[in-house]
Amino acid sequence: MRDLSQDNRLLSINIATVREQWDLRQAIEGIARAGIPALSVWRDKLETLGLAAATKLIKRHGLAVTGLCRGGMFTRAGNDGRTETLADNRRAIDEAAALEAACLVLIAGGLAPGSRDIGEARRIVRDGLAELLPYARAAGVPLAIEPLHPMYAADRACINTLAEANDLCDVLGEGIGIAVDVYHVWWDPNLAQEIARAGRQRRILGFHICDWLVPTTDLLLDRGMMGDGVIDIPAIRALVEAAGYDGFCEVEIFSKSNWWKRPAEEVLATAVARYRTVC
Amino acid sequence: MRDLSQDNRLLSINIATVREQWDLRQAIEGIARAGIPALSVWRDKLETLGLAAATKLIKRHGLAVTGLCRGGMFTRAGNDGRTETLADNRRAIDEAAALEAACLVLIAGGLAPGSRDIGEARRIVRDGLAELLPYARAAGVPLAIEPLHPMYAADRACINTLAEANDLCDVLGEGIGIAVDVYHVWWDPNLAQEIARAGRQRRILGFHICDWLVPTTDLLLDRGMMGDGVIDIPAIRALVEAAGYDGFCEVEIFSKSNWWKRPAEEVLATAVARYRTVC
Repeated sequence: MRDLSQDNRLLSINIATVREQWDLRQAIEGIARAGIPALSVWRDKLETLGLAAATKLIKRHGLAVTGLCRGGMFTRAGNDGRTETLADNRRAIDEAAALEAACLVLIAGGLAPGSRDIGEARRIVRDGLAELLPYARAAGVPLAIEPLHPMYAADRACINTLAEANDLCDVLGEGIGIAVDVYHVWWDPNLAQEIARAGRQRRILGFHICDWLVPTTDLLLDRGMMGDGVIDIPAIRALVEAAGYDGFCEVEIFSKSNWWKRPAEEVLATAVARYRTVC
Repeated sequence: MRDLSQDNRLLSINIATVREQWDLRQAIEGIARAGIPALSVWRDKLETLGLAAATKLIKRHGLAVTGLCRGGMFTRAGNDGRTETLADNRRAIDEAAALEAACLVLIAGGLAPGSRDIGEARRIVRDGLAELLPYARAAGVPLAIEPLHPMYAADRACINTLAEANDLCDVLGEGIGIAVDVYHVWWDPNLAQEIARAGRQRRILGFHICDWLVPTTDLLLDRGMMGDGVIDIPAIRALVEAAGYDGFCEVEIFSKSNWWKRPAEEVLATAVARYRTVC
């Protein structure tokens, strides 16, 4: 396993971690100031600053972009909105290319509006990915499916396990891989085998870290800082590294009532300390 | 598929559905008064009324007992509390026998105290079940493992999929089966195949219904009434019935801010109506 304790070389901050405190300009400058070499960008913040300005600022600070969040949401508009959804995903690919992002992170989308058919949702996602993929390949932007925890199956993402993500990648071929977020997958009894399977295909495009708090008080916005919860992060990192992953460890914490209320500098300093000691 | 629309013949009410309104005596009498032929009992309520009185009252009203909730929690006390946990589970088996319950419902327990090792938790559960099973067989009480949704993996149950429950039953042999609760399993991409697998072994000991609300505002206490959420209950019922299940449909709703605040009679009347029309 790689040694994280000596420096920040493999650390990336997903800007959602400080999204309530900082706009994108502040986040880029603050992350650089904290001696962190990489970040992951969200599209809403990107739109506010502007793609050209963001690209320039990120380059000036020499930061790597570990991902652009997020494309996907194939089911959200149902069949009627298919054309628009795909168009928006193509714009996301263009943005990821401009940012030289390591990948475009894709969230599948939940059940289609008014539907109770999760099998149908999964077929819509597969078809949407198949249609999007040639554009991503041409742009040189890897697509990263991020399986989300099953508690998001209804309203955010109907791809809920690494096995499903691997199955999708098997069907879809080159140009698509997986973002492994410990928050979503830590409970999975097939975790080791599915990470190994993804690794054999060189499919792991991102590794996201945070923690699962006990108790968890909000389904979406109560993620914990690494070390404050029950996820065995080093064990999962060992699996992804044994599977060949050599990229960044990206901190992504949505925390309405704790970390989003603290000064962003404190959040980053804590993330650095935890990354070096408990990850 | 069986026709539920004409009568309440296959309906059971888990008393947790009205736990804030009624004690066990009131629940037994109220369920009988509503023309519902079965109930599932919780041990805390049973302790208050007393086993002998409860048994007598249930018999007098001619109600079937579809389950006793709950045994298990093998990991809660860690290794130190193993003896005590097993003793408590044996008492639960005795109570289930006295009530002539169709099964004792088992919740596995989450991570052991202070532990981040979910593999260890799963081994503790397997060993605990193996130790408990001879006693249950001797008492003629089927044990029903209820896999819980992965969002409970940390603090309630480390058995989170039907596949894991089936694997456990394969290892443990006769006398142990599975309670299928739509709330916990509806999202599972392996749902159809694992229900069929359970059916081939005559392992399905209970079928629990409620609904998944969008949004869900509490991880534990915001379950929906059938029809108010996104679970395709008839589709899952079709799977369990095709797999040979011919028992009751047990309504189990924990609903802090809605159903627990309404008159119990209204809750039961609504459950009956929904059972007949949307399940």
